[in-house]
Amino acid sequence: MSGLNGHIVLAHGGGGELTRRLLDEHVLPPLRNALLAPLTDAAVLPVAAGRLCLTTDAFVVQPLEFPGGDIGRLAVCGTVNDLAVMGAVPQVLSLALIIEEGLPLTTLDRIVASVAHAAAEAGVVIGTGDTKVIERRGGDGMMITTAGVGVLRADARVDVARVAAGDVLIVTGGLAEHGLAVMAAREGLGLQTDVRSDVAPLNGLIGAVLDSGADVRFMRDPTRGGLAGVLADLAEASGLTLEVDEAALPIARGTRHLAELLGLDPLTVANEGKCVMVVPADDAERALRACRAHPLGRAAAVVGRCVAGRPTVELVTESGGRRVVQRPYGEELPRIC
Amino acid sequence: MSGLNGHIVLAHGGGGELTRRLLDEHVLPPLRNALLAPLTDAAVLPVAAGRLCLTTDAFVVQPLEFPGGDIGRLAVCGTVNDLAVMGAVPQVLSLALIIEEGLPLTTLDRIVASVAHAAAEAGVVIGTGDTKVIERRGGDGMMITTAGVGVLRADARVDVARVAAGDVLIVTGGLAEHGLAVMAAREGLGLQTDVRSDVAPLNGLIGAVLDSGADVRFMRDPTRGGLAGVLADLAEASGLTLEVDEAALPIARGTRHLAELLGLDPLTVANEGKCVMVVPADDAERALRACRAHPLGRAAAVVGRCVAGRPTVELVTESGGRRVVQRPYGEELPRIC
Repeated sequence: MSGLNGHIVLAHGGGGELTRRLLDEHVLPPLRNALLAPLTDAAVLPVAAGRLCLTTDAFVVQPLEFPGGDIGRLAVCGTVNDLAVMGAVPQVLSLALIIEEGLPLTTLDRIVASVAHAAAEAGVVIGTGDTKVIERRGGDGMMITTAGVGVLRADARVDVARVAAGDVLIVTGGLAEHGLAVMAAREGLGLQTDVRSDVAPLNGLIGAVLDSGADVRFMRDPTRGGLAGVLADLAEASGLTLEVDEAALPIARGTRHLAELLGLDPLTVANEGKCVMVVPADDAERALRACRAHPLGRAAAVVGRCVAGRPTVELVTESGGRRVVQRPYGEELPRIC
Repeated sequence: MSGLNGHIVLAHGGGGELTRRLLDEHVLPPLRNALLAPLTDAAVLPVAAGRLCLTTDAFVVQPLEFPGGDIGRLAVCGTVNDLAVMGAVPQVLSLALIIEEGLPLTTLDRIVASVAHAAAEAGVVIGTGDTKVIERRGGDGMMITTAGVGVLRADARVDVARVAAGDVLIVTGGLAEHGLAVMAAREGLGLQTDVRSDVAPLNGLIGAVLDSGADVRFMRDPTRGGLAGVLADLAEASGLTLEVDEAALPIARGTRHLAELLGLDPLTVANEGKCVMVVPADDAERALRACRAHPLGRAAAVVGRCVAGRPTVELVTESGGRRVVQRPYGEELPRIC
């Protein structure tokens, strides 16, 4: 516990003896691997010639721990998923911690263990990192920025320019669970719900779909801004109208209920373990089968199609009406990821 | 200005229309490059087979702008330098911004421009990024985490295990300028000083030394913890005694004066544009010449040597006495980088 009453103090961030003890006792042991071991300023990784992907994400979720996950799992999965939707195989992650003075070391320990667990689940290593300490705010704060490197699969041709009229939209599972679980945890008492964050590494599921031979033309994980945000981007980038069948959207009953209680539209709420894919209609069955054979894709569904027309997203309601889905404007849900 | 009185609001971080405008109007234009342009979830970079380096650093410096630099320049140089001291050629950086509600957009603009300028100076591109917004604290806050990828030079053999008795220690320029400049800026009025942060990308200087053929066995940029911290690590990792000649340490007169005023030991204060190198005694002249021919290395000096003995750092004072230099314990200087 470093003898300091079990909490982070500013001195843990000074780059001296205390920083070293913090790393040696609380950060490095759960993460230990061959790349990280030398503790030089960078990880060294041998690579074959090819195309590499580099991505980064900052995570500021509050609370740090929520039903179904925590900021550590979120940071690993978010970066793994950003690589996977590019068609890359994630390999090495960096981990930068900004810790607020006052954080209990037991909380830090749980979150670092969660980072290690999620990394093992995704098959990636934490190759390098950095730790900073900032002054007390609420005393329970921590932010994590991960970056990740992956190697592009030679057979992946994810490129929004290839999306064409006639292609179909697939969603790999129930929507809106991450954002709603975090919001419910924040509201605290009174909100009894079974909704848990869906935060999970998608590289296995996406790899299975690519292995199936389905021609995946576009993939994105609908995080901040939700499905509505991803589809607005896709409509704009492809120049096509996206027709979404409301009845086909996989949204669990409990999720729908919680969204109503909180007054939120599930289409704009963040997911952290779901993927939107576009494939030619002829490949839809093949892609769906691959999804449903994977534990994270059992509820996968074709939810719509791309058609020629103005670049908009149209929701075809259960009664047969149509309404335009807008890109969410601002911050419906602060600090959700 | 996005029509919101010229300040960051929480809604800028929501992943919706406002986030897009923030990126399109304030973040992307200065950084624009071929990798970043597609705005997918990751940058794709073609690589030849070889050894890649990945590194990351989180920056929480206060104030955001200080004499000689700002958090943007610091974030680029810190990561470029961590790659360079590995013997790698830095290529692509990721940029994750965590912005506090209330930050003036004009401040953001200056800092993003500074990121772009430093990246150009270092010859790297910002390939991918992320932007998050957190609640108001003081209203002037911003944190940046960069990660970087570089390719290891085939001729670089930086490895602390190769450091041997008889090798010499080189410092590439005046010590303690970054930390003191930031502290002086923070103290505000009353402290008139010309000391400016030395924050600069070292890849050019380090490349010149490697090109000279000098056998560089160890390199590190003495940031948090200062020269004392790096030498403590080196003594421990090499198992050698490091003798440092106090009279040989390049510390400018104004720096020394400011350190005395602030009651700080220049050996423990952070640098952001200096490098400690270990080379065989026979290569010292060659390495020094290469340093001094570079604008960032004019004050380079041999400051000591590695000798057999207990792994400690000993300062040989101008009067011929000896004192042991300790690793700094904790946080003498909070939020200095």
